[in-house]
Amino acid sequence: MPQRHLLIVAHGSRRQASNDEVRALGERIGELHDPAIHRVEVAFLELAEPSIPDGLARCVDQGAEEIIVFPYFLAAGTHVANDIPQALAAFGERYPDVRVRLAAHLGASTSLARTVLDGVGEMG
Amino acid sequence: MPQRHLLIVAHGSRRQASNDEVRALGERIGELHDPAIHRVEVAFLELAEPSIPDGLARCVDQGAEEIIVFPYFLAAGTHVANDIPQALAAFGERYPDVRVRLAAHLGASTSLARTVLDGVGEMG
Repeated sequence: MPQRHLLIVAHGSRRQASNDEVRALGERIGELHDPAIHRVEVAFLELAEPSIPDGLARCVDQGAEEIIVFPYFLAAGTHVANDIPQALAAFGERYPDVRVRLAAHLGASTSLARTVLDGVGEMG
Repeated sequence: MPQRHLLIVAHGSRRQASNDEVRALGERIGELHDPAIHRVEVAFLELAEPSIPDGLARCVDQGAEEIIVFPYFLAAGTHVANDIPQALAAFGERYPDVRVRLAAHLGASTSLARTVLDGVGEMG
Protein backbone atom coordinates (compact mmCIF):
# COMPACT_ATOMS: atom_id res chain seq x y z
CA MET A 1 0.00 0.00 0.00
CA PRO A 2 1.43 3.40 -0.94
CA GLN A 3 2.36 5.84 1.80
CA ARG A 4 -0.77 7.98 1.92
CA HIS A 5 -0.86 11.52 3.31
CA LEU A 6 -3.93 13.65 3.93
CA LEU A 7 -3.86 17.34 3.02
CA ILE A 8 -6.69 19.39 4.51
CA VAL A 9 -7.24 22.45 2.29
CA ALA A 10 -9.07 25.40 3.87
CA HIS A 11 -9.85 28.78 2.39
CA GLY A 12 -7.60 30.79 4.66
CA SER A 13 -8.48 33.96 6.54
CA ARG A 14 -6.98 37.33 7.42
CA ARG A 15 -7.92 36.39 10.95
CA GLN A 16 -5.03 34.25 12.24
CA ALA A 17 -7.19 32.57 14.87
CA SER A 18 -9.32 31.08 12.07
CA ASN A 19 -6.26 29.64 10.39
CA ASP A 20 -5.12 28.28 13.72
CA GLU A 21 -8.49 26.55 14.13
CA VAL A 22 -7.76 24.69 10.90
CA ARG A 23 -4.24 23.80 12.00
CA ALA A 24 -5.61 22.50 15.30
CA LEU A 25 -8.14 20.39 13.43
CA GLY A 26 -5.32 18.93 11.33
CA GLU A 27 -3.51 17.99 14.53
CA ARG A 28 -6.63 16.40 16.00
CA ILE A 29 -7.09 14.35 12.83
CA GLY A 30 -3.48 13.21 13.06
CA GLU A 31 -4.00 12.21 16.67
CA LEU A 32 -6.79 9.85 15.62
CA HIS A 33 -4.03 7.75 13.98
CA ASP A 34 -6.13 6.44 11.12
CA PRO A 35 -4.20 3.37 9.93
CA ALA A 36 -4.75 4.35 6.28
CA ILE A 37 -3.23 7.82 6.72
CA HIS A 38 0.50 8.15 7.31
CA ARG A 39 0.50 11.87 8.03
CA VAL A 40 -1.84 14.87 8.05
CA GLU A 41 -0.99 18.34 6.76
CA VAL A 42 -3.02 21.49 6.20
CA ALA A 43 -2.80 24.08 3.43
CA PHE A 44 -4.69 27.22 2.46
CA LEU A 45 -6.12 28.42 -0.83
CA GLU A 46 -5.22 32.01 0.01
CA LEU A 47 -4.44 34.47 2.82
CA ALA A 48 -2.48 31.95 4.90
CA GLU A 49 0.49 29.62 4.68
CA PRO A 50 1.32 27.08 3.48
CA SER A 51 -0.25 27.42 0.04
CA ILE A 52 -1.66 24.35 -1.70
CA PRO A 53 1.51 23.83 -3.81
CA ASP A 54 3.66 24.20 -0.68
CA GLY A 55 1.43 21.81 1.26
CA LEU A 56 1.61 19.21 -1.49
CA ALA A 57 5.40 19.62 -1.74
CA ARG A 58 5.66 19.20 2.01
CA CYS A 59 3.82 15.87 1.74
CA VAL A 60 6.20 14.72 -1.02
CA ASP A 61 9.23 15.79 1.01
CA GLN A 62 7.92 13.61 3.83
CA GLY A 63 7.66 10.58 1.59
CA ALA A 64 4.07 10.68 0.36
CA GLU A 65 3.35 8.36 -2.56
CA GLU A 66 -0.34 9.23 -2.53
CA ILE A 67 -1.96 12.44 -1.31
CA ILE A 68 -5.64 12.77 -0.50
CA VAL A 69 -6.74 16.39 -0.68
CA PHE A 70 -9.75 17.17 1.50
CA PRO A 71 -11.49 20.52 0.78
CA TYR A 72 -12.44 21.92 4.19
CA PHE A 73 -15.32 23.89 2.74
CA LEU A 74 -19.00 23.76 3.58
CA ALA A 75 -20.21 24.59 0.09
CA ALA A 76 -19.16 23.41 -3.36
CA GLY A 77 -18.48 26.87 -4.81
CA THR A 78 -15.85 28.04 -7.27
CA HIS A 79 -13.01 27.32 -4.86
CA VAL A 80 -13.96 23.67 -4.58
CA ALA A 81 -15.04 23.23 -8.19
CA ASN A 82 -12.25 25.13 -9.94
CA ASP A 83 -9.47 26.60 -7.82
CA ILE A 84 -8.45 23.49 -5.90
CA PRO A 85 -8.58 21.16 -8.94
CA GLN A 86 -6.43 23.67 -10.87
CA ALA A 87 -3.80 23.68 -8.15
CA LEU A 88 -3.77 19.88 -8.15
CA ALA A 89 -3.43 19.71 -11.93
CA ALA A 90 -0.38 21.97 -11.82
CA PHE A 91 1.15 19.74 -9.14
CA GLY A 92 0.42 16.61 -11.19
CA GLU A 93 2.45 17.96 -14.08
CA ARG A 94 5.45 18.51 -11.82
CA TYR A 95 5.14 15.28 -9.81
CA PRO A 96 3.63 12.68 -12.13
CA ASP A 97 4.70 9.81 -9.86
CA VAL A 98 2.66 10.99 -6.87
CA ARG A 99 -0.99 10.06 -6.99
CA VAL A 100 -3.26 12.88 -5.88
CA ARG A 101 -6.91 12.20 -5.12
CA LEU A 102 -9.49 14.87 -4.41
CA ALA A 103 -12.03 14.00 -1.73
CA ALA A 104 -15.53 15.45 -1.61
CA HIS A 105 -15.75 18.73 0.30
CA LEU A 106 -16.72 18.72 3.97
CA GLY A 107 -20.26 19.93 3.30
CA ALA A 108 -20.93 16.79 1.26
CA SER A 109 -20.00 14.42 4.11
CA THR A 110 -22.87 12.14 4.88
CA SER A 111 -21.91 12.16 8.55
CA LEU A 112 -22.17 15.96 8.88
CA ALA A 113 -25.79 15.86 10.00
CA ARG A 114 -24.77 13.60 12.87
CA THR A 115 -21.84 15.92 13.66
CA VAL A 116 -24.25 18.84 14.09
CA LEU A 117 -26.43 16.82 16.46
CA ASP A 118 -23.34 15.73 18.38
CA GLY A 119 -22.45 19.40 18.82
CA VAL A 120 -25.94 20.15 20.11
CA GLY A 121 -25.77 17.15 22.40
CA GLU A 122 -22.55 18.44 23.92
CA MET A 123 -24.49 21.44 25.25
CA GLY A 124 -26.18 19.14 27.75
CA MET B 1 -39.39 19.03 28.80
CA PRO B 2 -39.94 22.13 26.65
CA GLN B 3 -40.59 21.74 22.95
CA ARG B 4 -37.09 22.27 21.57
CA HIS B 5 -36.36 23.34 17.99
CA LEU B 6 -33.00 23.49 16.28
CA LEU B 7 -32.16 26.45 14.04
CA ILE B 8 -29.11 25.93 11.81
CA VAL B 9 -27.68 29.36 10.96
CA ALA B 10 -25.43 29.55 7.89
CA HIS B 11 -23.75 32.55 6.32
CA GLY B 12 -25.76 32.54 3.10
CA SER B 13 -24.40 32.83 -0.42
CA ARG B 14 -25.23 34.52 -3.73
CA ARG B 15 -24.87 31.05 -5.16
CA GLN B 16 -28.25 29.41 -4.62
CA ALA B 17 -26.81 25.90 -4.80
CA SER B 18 -24.78 26.66 -1.66
CA ASN B 19 -27.90 27.76 0.20
CA ASP B 20 -29.66 24.63 -1.02
CA GLU B 21 -26.80 22.54 0.40
CA VAL B 22 -27.58 24.03 3.81
CA ARG B 23 -31.30 23.42 3.41
CA ALA B 24 -30.60 19.82 2.43
CA LEU B 25 -28.42 19.41 5.51
CA GLY B 26 -31.27 20.73 7.66
CA GLU B 27 -33.56 18.11 6.17
CA ARG B 28 -31.02 15.34 6.77
CA ILE B 29 -30.69 16.42 10.40
CA GLY B 30 -34.47 16.35 10.74
CA GLU B 31 -34.56 12.86 9.26
CA LEU B 32 -32.26 11.62 12.03
CA HIS B 33 -35.22 12.19 14.37
CA ASP B 34 -33.19 13.13 17.42
CA PRO B 35 -35.61 12.60 20.32
CA ALA B 36 -34.47 15.85 21.97
CA ILE B 37 -35.23 17.98 18.88
CA HIS B 38 -38.83 18.55 17.86
CA ARG B 39 -38.12 20.25 14.57
CA VAL B 40 -35.16 21.53 12.51
CA GLU B 41 -35.10 24.81 10.58
CA VAL B 42 -32.39 26.71 8.74
CA ALA B 43 -31.75 30.45 8.52
CA PHE B 44 -29.13 32.69 6.94
CA LEU B 45 -27.13 35.61 8.25
CA GLU B 46 -27.29 37.36 4.90
CA LEU B 47 -27.81 36.87 1.14
CA ALA B 48 -30.49 34.18 1.54
CA GLU B 49 -33.86 33.59 3.15
CA PRO B 50 -35.09 33.13 5.77
CA SER B 51 -33.13 35.62 7.86
CA ILE B 52 -32.24 34.78 11.46
CA PRO B 53 -35.22 36.77 12.86
CA ASP B 54 -37.55 35.08 10.38
CA GLY B 55 -36.12 31.67 11.19
CA LEU B 56 -36.58 32.23 14.92
CA ALA B 57 -40.13 33.50 14.36
CA ARG B 58 -40.88 30.43 12.28
CA CYS B 59 -39.79 28.22 15.18
CA VAL B 60 -42.06 30.14 17.55
CA ASP B 61 -44.98 29.90 15.13
CA GLN B 62 -44.48 26.14 15.13
CA GLY B 63 -44.66 25.96 18.91
CA ALA B 64 -41.03 26.17 19.99
CA GLU B 65 -40.52 26.81 23.70
CA GLU B 66 -36.76 26.52 23.39
CA ILE B 67 -34.61 27.18 20.33
CA ILE B 68 -31.07 25.96 19.96
CA VAL B 69 -29.17 28.06 17.44
CA PHE B 70 -26.32 26.22 15.75
CA PRO B 71 -23.83 28.40 13.84
CA TYR B 72 -22.96 26.44 10.70
CA PHE B 73 -19.55 28.11 10.40
CA LEU B 74 -16.10 26.57 10.34
CA ALA B 75 -14.39 29.48 12.07
CA ALA B 76 -15.31 31.63 15.06
CA GLY B 77 -15.08 34.98 13.28
CA THR B 78 -17.11 38.14 13.68
CA HIS B 79 -20.26 36.50 12.40
CA VAL B 80 -20.16 33.86 15.10
CA ALA B 81 -18.85 36.11 17.87
CA ASN B 82 -20.95 39.22 17.22
CA ASP B 83 -23.55 39.10 14.45
CA ILE B 84 -25.42 35.97 15.49
CA PRO B 85 -25.50 36.86 19.23
CA GLN B 86 -26.81 40.32 18.31
CA ALA B 87 -29.64 38.82 16.30
CA LEU B 88 -30.50 36.52 19.20
CA ALA B 89 -30.48 39.39 21.71
CA ALA B 90 -32.96 41.34 19.59
CA PHE B 91 -35.21 38.29 19.44
CA GLY B 92 -34.98 37.79 23.20
CA GLU B 93 -36.35 41.27 23.79
CA ARG B 94 -39.38 40.52 21.63
CA TYR B 95 -40.01 36.96 22.85
CA PRO B 96 -38.86 36.81 26.47
CA ASP B 97 -40.76 33.57 27.08
CA VAL B 98 -38.85 31.56 24.51
CA ARG B 99 -35.50 30.29 25.67
CA VAL B 100 -32.78 30.68 23.06
CA ARG B 101 -29.47 28.88 23.47
CA LEU B 102 -26.45 29.38 21.27
CA ALA B 103 -24.45 26.25 20.47
CA ALA B 104 -20.74 26.27 19.65
CA HIS B 105 -20.03 26.74 15.94
CA LEU B 106 -19.47 23.72 13.73
CA GLY B 107 -15.70 24.21 13.59
CA ALA B 108 -15.54 23.68 17.36
CA SER B 109 -17.25 20.28 17.26
CA THR B 110 -15.05 17.68 18.80
CA SER B 111 -16.35 15.09 16.33
CA LEU B 112 -15.31 17.10 13.26
CA ALA B 113 -11.93 15.38 13.01
CA ARG B 114 -13.71 12.06 12.80
CA THR B 115 -16.13 13.51 10.21
CA VAL B 116 -13.20 14.41 7.97
CA LEU B 117 -11.77 10.90 8.21
CA ASP B 118 -15.21 9.46 7.49
CA GLY B 119 -15.31 11.55 4.33
CA VAL B 120 -11.91 10.26 3.30
CA GLY B 121 -12.96 6.71 4.11
CA GLU B 122 -15.96 7.04 1.81
CA MET B 123 -13.55 7.44 -1.12
CA GLY B 124 -12.68 3.78 -0.82
